[in-house]
This record gives sequence, C-alpha cells and structure tokens, in this order.
Amino acid sequence: MKNNSLQEIAQKLNEAKSILLFPHINIDGDALGSCAAICKTLRAKGKDAWILLEDDIPANLRFLDKGYCTYDMDKIKNPDICMCVDCGDLGRFPKRAEKFNEGKTTICIDHHRTTDFFCQYNYVDSVEAATGQIAFDLIKLMGIKPDEEIGEAIFAAITTDTGDFQYSNTQKKSHLIAAELYDWGVDFNKVSVEIYENVRMEKIMLKNKAMETLKLVGNGLGAIMHITQEMLEETGAAMDESEGLAQDLRSIAGVEFSALIKESKPGVARVSLRAKRRGDVAKIAQRLGGGGHTKAAGCTINLPIEEAVAVVEEEIEKAIEELE
Amino acid sequence: MKNNSLQEIAQKLNEAKSILLFPHINIDGDALGSCAAICKTLRAKGKDAWILLEDDIPANLRFLDKGYCTYDMDKIKNPDICMCVDCGDLGRFPKRAEKFNEGKTTICIDHHRTTDFFCQYNYVDSVEAATGQIAFDLIKLMGIKPDEEIGEAIFAAITTDTGDFQYSNTQKKSHLIAAELYDWGVDFNKVSVEIYENVRMEKIMLKNKAMETLKLVGNGLGAIMHITQEMLEETGAAMDESEGLAQDLRSIAGVEFSALIKESKPGVARVSLRAKRRGDVAKIAQRLGGGGHTKAAGCTINLPIEEAVAVVEEEIEKAIEELE
Repeated sequence: MKNNSLQEIAQKLNEAKSILLFPHINIDGDALGSCAAICKTLRAKGKDAWILLEDDIPANLRFLDKGYCTYDMDKIKNPDICMCVDCGDLGRFPKRAEKFNEGKTTICIDHHRTTDFFCQYNYVDSVEAATGQIAFDLIKLMGIKPDEEIGEAIFAAITTDTGDFQYSNTQKKSHLIAAELYDWGVDFNKVSVEIYENVRMEKIMLKNKAMETLKLVGNGLGAIMHITQEMLEETGAAMDESEGLAQDLRSIAGVEFSALIKESKPGVARVSLRAKRRGDVAKIAQRLGGGGHTKAAGCTINLPIEEAVAVVEEEIEKAIEELE
Repeated sequence: MKNNSLQEIAQKLNEAKSILLFPHINIDGDALGSCAAICKTLRAKGKDAWILLEDDIPANLRFLDKGYCTYDMDKIKNPDICMCVDCGDLGRFPKRAEKFNEGKTTICIDHHRTTDFFCQYNYVDSVEAATGQIAFDLIKLMGIKPDEEIGEAIFAAITTDTGDFQYSNTQKKSHLIAAELYDWGVDFNKVSVEIYENVRMEKIMLKNKAMETLKLVGNGLGAIMHITQEMLEETGAAMDESEGLAQDLRSIAGVEFSALIKESKPGVARVSLRAKRRGDVAKIAQRLGGGGHTKAAGCTINLPIEEAVAVVEEEIEKAIEELE
C-alpha cells in the first residue's frame, strides 16, 4: 500500500465542486479541527463543502463549528468527493458509510497506524502527531491565504492530539507549525481557554465521586479507580466525561500503572490502562482480551463491576511483580 | 534604565572563573530550569559554578538538579560573578542577599515587569514568556555545543511558565525554541512526565477535600473554594500544593471569575483570584488591598476563613453584576 501525494489530493480537491468531509464517531479535537480547517479552505475557494456528522460535538469543541457541520445526509447529493479525515475505515463512521460510498471520488487522510488504504486516494502517515498536521500541509498546497480561523482549527487539532505538546508523539514539526500559526493571527490562549477551560460541573462531580474509589496497589506502583452507572445518574455526567481520568491516575507520584474501570452497562466493564515510564499495559490488555500501545491500552471485561475491578487489580499486581 | 546586551553578559561570564547563580525563593520551573541550563554551560566551559538556594526544590523539579544546587554559603568564596535569574531584587532571595553583594560583578537576567535594574549588568525583557528563553539566547552566545540536558532544563523553564504553551504570554519564539531543542536531543515527553506526572497523593486528597467546599455564585459565573489549616492536617499536604486549584476553578464551563481562599494561619486568609475571558480580577484584588494582573491577582484578608470567604463572595458577586 502506497500513499498518494498530498499534491495529488490538493489537486483533486481544487478540481471538485462539492465535497463532504467525514470525521470519525466520538469526534475529537483532531478530527473536527482538521475538518473545520479543510472545510473553511474549500469554501474560501468557492466550493460547496460540509462536514457530515452522526454524533454530538463535545461542548468544548463547539467553537470550531462555524456553520460547517450538518447531520443532513442529503445536504450534498452525489458529492464529487467524499473525504474521511482522521480515520481510515468505514466502521469509524458506520451510519454514514453508505453516504461515503456515494462520492464520485473518495479520499482518506489520517495518521492512525491501523488505517486501511480503502479509498481511491489515500494519505496516511502514522509519524504525524495529528491529522491536523497533514491538513496544515494540504491547505498550504491548495493555494489559499491562510487566516486566523483556519489556524485556530489546526491548532485545536494539534494541541488535543499531542496532549498539549506533552505526549511522546509530539514532533519538532508540531512546534514549527504552532510557530507558523502565529503569523496567521492565531490566539493560542483563546483556543486553549475554549478547549481546556470548559469543564462541565457534572464532570467535576463525577471525578470527585470516582476519586472516592481510588486505590493504590503494589506499594503505590499501581492506581485503580472505577465508575459505575449509579455515579453517572447521581452526578448527571456522561460516561465520556471520564476521559482524562486514566491519565490523571498515572500522574500520581510513584505510580507506574493505572487503570480506570467503567461500568458501560450492568455486567460489562470497559477498562482504560496506562503506564508511565517502565510498564507495558499492552501486555495486560492482551491477557484480558484487549489491545493497544505500551503506554495506553484497553479491554472489555464481561463481569459485574466489582468483579472486573478485582480482575484488573490482580493483573496490575502481577505486572508490578514482574517489574521488580 | 537600559538593558545591557546579552552579548556583554555572555562575555562577562566567559571571562569569569567562579559564578554563583541566584534563583528566587519559592523556586519554580523557570527559575531552576534557567539556572540549571546556565550552570551546566558554565561548568562545560571549566568554570566553578553553583546554584545557591535557600529553600526546598519541589519534588517534580528535582530531576533538574544534577549536582548543581547547594545551600552552602561558602561553596564559592568571593565569587567573580553573582547572577540572579528570574528575579530582580534582593527581596526575592532574602537569606542570600548579603552573599549576592559579595560578587565582584553582579548580573541580572529576568522577564518580570517589576524588576529593578539593580545589578551592574542587567537584561530584563518582560515580553519574553520565560527567563528560560533569555537563558537559551545567552547560552547560544556563550559558544558551547548545546546538549540534551541543557535543552531539557530550558524546556522545563518554558513549559512551566507558559502553562504548557497555553497561557497568553506564550510566543511564537516559545515554539521555535521548543522546535530547536529537538535538535539538541530533548525528549519532551520525559520532561513532561517528570514535571506533570509527579503529583503527591496528599495533594490529590487535599484537592478532594477542597472540592467539597466548591460553591458556584452569580448564576454560575463565579466559583469559590477554600482550604483550611485543618484540611492540611487531615491530608498531610502542604499549602503550596494547592497551586493550580484557582486555575482549575476557572476551567469550569461558564465560570468567568474564580477565587481560592487559603487559611494561611488562623485569622489570615490569602486569596488567589482568576478571570477567564471577560472579567478583571485586578480590580477586585485592589478593592481588597491586593493587586496583580487582569486575569490573575491576589490579596490577603485579615479575617477568620469563614468571614474571608463571605467577603470574597460578595466582591465576586458585585463584579459579576458589573459584567452584566
């Protein structure tokens, strides 16, 4: 499988009249930021361009949608191009998959390692810290004058996917792009306030409830926490608002392994695993029927929450013993 | 008052044999990171160089001290140069002020607006996001081959003083330096893990306790929280571990003003005020006998904690009314 060049893709976009953009479900800052930047660019070039969604935009990302997003499958009939962004298989936008195949031309840009080259034109580079970086290169090739709004969307994509330049995927290029975005008039602080200072009280209350279940194991090398459906009811929070908690757990001094166990529904527990420096959570996830990366992995356990917690605790203690 | 050139200061350092570096009390990432980078550079050039301290290094910054720090006032007798870093008056290192004046030459580099030009050589630029950026320029002028360790110290300085590239002081230059540090071999993730994933359990427990006092006022536009001496005793945390909480409060969706009220001792409350987009907390602080910036200010109220909380609440409600 070989990439097309971004030049080819820019040319295809420049030739088209109507383009539908497809970010993945559970839309995040990279998917929406990249789409918004490309959509604005396409419209600036006089094209009929929309971002087609199938689920809600998280509150802290809504500022990125300046009239680009639609849930209307008929917004563009028989689009010249359907382009998936930050995802690389139809399963990542299941309710829109049929619509995607309506595109006279299909294009994919993505930075996930697992992406199939399933479109007519594909540009996939897993070294890129964010799809926003690919979008940045693409937009420059399309020959428009970049502006503040496009820059903010690119910055949103990069800051969210690099954990604000902290994760190990952050590249020299990430900082060089951020520096260049200054010249486009981007107010980084404004974007950061929108993204990071927009936390619902319900999320804060959920976190407090979850903190009450925090347990250190293996001489403080492991940290385990769980969230039940009851906690969601009590706080009014949604389960996706537990995002970031596994990361927070890992941030405790001395902790090398962390696990957040979420009761998706009675009898089903979704587990988020994190390792800090020395550990490998991909191994733990695999033993429990899941998978992922060395430092971030996950699995699903079909057991009541208390039993799932016990299973994970045992696995983490085992991993800690292996570490020592 | 006029700055000397960094070239002049680099030359002075290159000519000297012994140099003592003076970061400010309540040492932070910028002060220690800048000092560590300069100290390593000076030693690489064969100089006798030390960082003289008068208080503890926070746990998450200790990785920066690779044998550079000392509490021994006699470590260097009659140093050729005493150089204060990230601070600009003797009051910022009170127990070391006398020693500072022993320097045959005195130098100051800083980025605080309030800095006096009290040394023989001064380089103060309040536009710089961090003193680490000045240290970066200075080190390059001193003509050594930069290495990973120096780069990590510079990165630590910049990431902490810019709130990880989120605060409004962040510059294009901050990102350009970060990009250049890649070429020095810096592992950003390693530094970020040291600084940000090193949170004491005591701090987490203190935060949980404080969260129980969280109160939203003025239709959710204000958030107020307090910390008592009793909470410190119960959790084993130190008051300085409440750092970041005022920021967290500001991050609640809808909140424009936040206040964290800390009982320094019975009858004395220290107030940290933050504004998000529209508010001005400098005004509130001034009314209460304090001061600061538009978005971050503070004051001290000589009242029992409950009464101090009531006073702050009233002022915040007043500010919210003025906003509307």
